Amino acid sequence: MAASVAIPDTVQTPEVLIDLDILQRNINALARAVASRGQRLRPHAKTHKIPQIAELQMAAGARGLTVATVGEAEVFARNGVQDLFIAYPLWVGGPMAPRLKALGGKTRLRVGVDSVEGARNLAERLGADAGILEVMIELDSGHRRSGAAPDAAAEVARAARAAGLRVAGLFTFPGHSYGPGAARGAADDESRVLSEAARDLRAAGFRDLELSGGSTPTAHTPDPGAATEVRPGVYIFNDAQQLEMGHCGFADIALTVASTVVSRRPHAQGGGQAVLDAGTKVLGGDRPAWASGFARILGSPESHVTALSEHHATVDFPEGSRLPGYGEKLQVIPNHVCLVPNLVDAVTVVQRHGADTEGDRTYRIVDRWAVAARGRNN
Amino acid sequence: MAASVAIPDTVQTPEVLIDLDILQRNINALARAVASRGQRLRPHAKTHKIPQIAELQMAAGARGLTVATVGEAEVFARNGVQDLFIAYPLWVGGPMAPRLKALGGKTRLRVGVDSVEGARNLAERLGADAGILEVMIELDSGHRRSGAAPDAAAEVARAARAAGLRVAGLFTFPGHSYGPGAARGAADDESRVLSEAARDLRAAGFRDLELSGGSTPTAHTPDPGAATEVRPGVYIFNDAQQLEMGHCGFADIALTVASTVVSRRPHAQGGGQAVLDAGTKVLGGDRPAWASGFARILGSPESHVTALSEHHATVDFPEGSRLPGYGEKLQVIPNHVCLVPNLVDAVTVVQRHGADTEGDRTYRIVDRWAVAARGRNN
Repeated sequence: MAASVAIPDTVQTPEVLIDLDILQRNINALARAVASRGQRLRPHAKTHKIPQIAELQMAAGARGLTVATVGEAEVFARNGVQDLFIAYPLWVGGPMAPRLKALGGKTRLRVGVDSVEGARNLAERLGADAGILEVMIELDSGHRRSGAAPDAAAEVARAARAAGLRVAGLFTFPGHSYGPGAARGAADDESRVLSEAARDLRAAGFRDLELSGGSTPTAHTPDPGAATEVRPGVYIFNDAQQLEMGHCGFADIALTVASTVVSRRPHAQGGGQAVLDAGTKVLGGDRPAWASGFARILGSPESHVTALSEHHATVDFPEGSRLPGYGEKLQVIPNHVCLVPNLVDAVTVVQRHGADTEGDRTYRIVDRWAVAARGRNN
Repeated sequence: MAASVAIPDTVQTPEVLIDLDILQRNINALARAVASRGQRLRPHAKTHKIPQIAELQMAAGARGLTVATVGEAEVFARNGVQDLFIAYPLWVGGPMAPRLKALGGKTRLRVGVDSVEGARNLAERLGADAGILEVMIELDSGHRRSGAAPDAAAEVARAARAAGLRVAGLFTFPGHSYGPGAARGAADDESRVLSEAARDLRAAGFRDLELSGGSTPTAHTPDPGAATEVRPGVYIFNDAQQLEMGHCGFADIALTVASTVVSRRPHAQGGGQAVLDAGTKVLGGDRPAWASGFARILGSPESHVTALSEHHATVDFPEGSRLPGYGEKLQVIPNHVCLVPNLVDAVTVVQRHGADTEGDRTYRIVDRWAVAARGRNN
């Protein structure tokens, strides 16, 4: 999405726009890069939660999808995806076991475990149906969230095997890749822990191990490292975080939130403050310490989003810049795009129209996609 | 919700729980306090978005509801609420004018404006139907978001009148009340700007002015100030912010997110880190600088939620405290509760069961309420 493309007046703001051409280009570019490194791609679908985008990813060569929850897996299995990995250390309780069994009857299924207890609980809950899925052992590569310590992975794998589960491999999410200049070091950590734990598992007799790495920042690093597959999510849309980490440019932003200027405070020297009708209830509230603000504005790289409340974005336009007028429509780039489709029932798909001709640079609405897995938190 | 009430095994986490008895008590207590100060109560329904809760509020004496968007107004009007105030400086464009007209035919309707331009645009878009609503002039009382400067309110009101709109009064949202010890000063600011602007409007011939103040923190201050009505939202549920500002106790928390321990790192000295299956996609990501963390845990006042990602809460239990076990269910208190119902299709309504007897302290599931206005951002 380039700047200065007009939003049709029929769009009631705030509204999530997806630029189909940029989306397709992002999908193709990463698919090619991953294939050229000899890795397989299993994109994380929690970012979009939209079956039509899953189809584009599969058509570009993805082997299957990654999801975060059983509920997301159910939606994508129902929409024809045949190979799903729930990359989460599931604790199976209550109604989850029958759901996993039903899912395993429909699609190839892998799920995460990160502890001996988790592996035993999973096996016990599945009982005679343990063969409907494979497990992937989660490792902590430095993010300090879930994941076994690399030197504990073999113990978890042996416990899983002893409980009757098939161990397919190892995975990690290098969440500490999120920060300016952090991707290279995090990619090295990811590769190192996958290699170390794989060596221990091989010594314990495990073979043909999948080594699954993650994250859009590390997927952009040129060296494949030890991973046999990667699980980036954000790359399809990009967002203000990726922009400020240097992983994409404004022209690579495929998802924005169309919004309207509802309040203004001009400064005497030019610029001033504008309030837009998009807040945390459509943009999400993520704001890492290193970010320049709560979002970015397409076409106004000089502006800063200094505050978000539920239905307001407060944007500062610096001295000497043009303060947008009342009713003007702007495109907000969210900090963390994974939160955004989850906040709406559907997104508006657009293409640039007449970009080559003077005087007609308006988005054309080409489709509307339901966010079929919205809200599937469990 | 008190600590150590067990969550039924049929609850698939993460799941939003509402304790009906605490909800009802919170609704009644604030209704009584507001009435005793001679003010009218118009609760903000953006917090819950649930018609059943609106009914409880109306039954307790609310004169009507406040909402943030036209979409929320449509849902509550359809559910029988006869008096709605969209407390937002609407910029009416695209399909919004016909929606406002339809709404004005069903319910008594007030909307916000904060500028001469906004008032003229509203009147122009409504045309001959300008009489279907009344406008309230928004004032900035120190939050520095939307709202006219108090000394500019009369100019906006005159422009609205000249354009054919009826001016019902003034409103402000003292958002700077959110902070420890900030409520008193913000309540004074609110009262002062309402009084000053009302004086100017009366001098310009406006009569019978509604003076509408806001916010749960200022609604808890004992002195009514100048406001004739108040618009608190959070008070029905309370949340970790209200708790840490001292406006409620743990026993006043009516909404929690049931979650499960999925990963653990015990420390040698006791305590350690637990990871729960509730993240920003069910809790929201608000984290003011003065907050102790990203959420609180009911029954573990000593713990800290040090990080949230989309599907993980990382909780530190200090040295010497008990680290919850795998699969244990905890109740997370979100920092900012208004974000939570908006993230789910429905909530589970519970009551404490057997609280007086030993050995049987389990929530009883008494209802399930759809979040009818979820996602109505425009």
